[in-house]
Amino acid sequence: MTLLFFLQLRKPLVEKLRRERINSSIEQLKSLLGPEFLKQQPDSKLEKADILEMTVCFLTQLQQQNQNFPCHCDSLYNNEKETF
Amino acid sequence: MTLLFFLQLRKPLVEKLRRERINSSIEQLKSLLGPEFLKQQPDSKLEKADILEMTVCFLTQLQQQNQNFPCHCDSLYNNEKETF
Repeated sequence: MTLLFFLQLRKPLVEKLRRERINSSIEQLKSLLGPEFLKQQPDSKLEKADILEMTVCFLTQLQQQNQNFPCHCDSLYNNEKETF
Repeated sequence: MTLLFFLQLRKPLVEKLRRERINSSIEQLKSLLGPEFLKQQPDSKLEKADILEMTVCFLTQLQQQNQNFPCHCDSLYNNEKETF
């Protein structure tokens, strides 16, 4: 029963940390989108869903841009392998 | 009271749609990261927080890559202005 009690106490803490990681990443994505991009929605408070949809769009265009004008992006994946 | 009842019914529906938008975007981001990038975490099921952190890292590197080797990315923001 002590273990069960411990697990019950632990669950909301784990969930809180998980939400903090998600929220922190979304804030970072927002800053990476850049002011020009964020101007598209000047009148409304940006929701998390808005930021994520803009990120999908931004990343898609950035990748298409790199396919059309390849610029040493082959090394990107190799760099990533060292990071993770 | 009818309006209040309507709003109380509406709230979980709005919340459900919001969560669906977030989850859909995260799935799209996962597919945009590419198989090479996702290989970094082969043994574990990827959580939403993992995908978002990888996206931050990927986008940062992609932007740095474009700064080092500028490849017509100036037009990216201009295209975006038409999209949103």
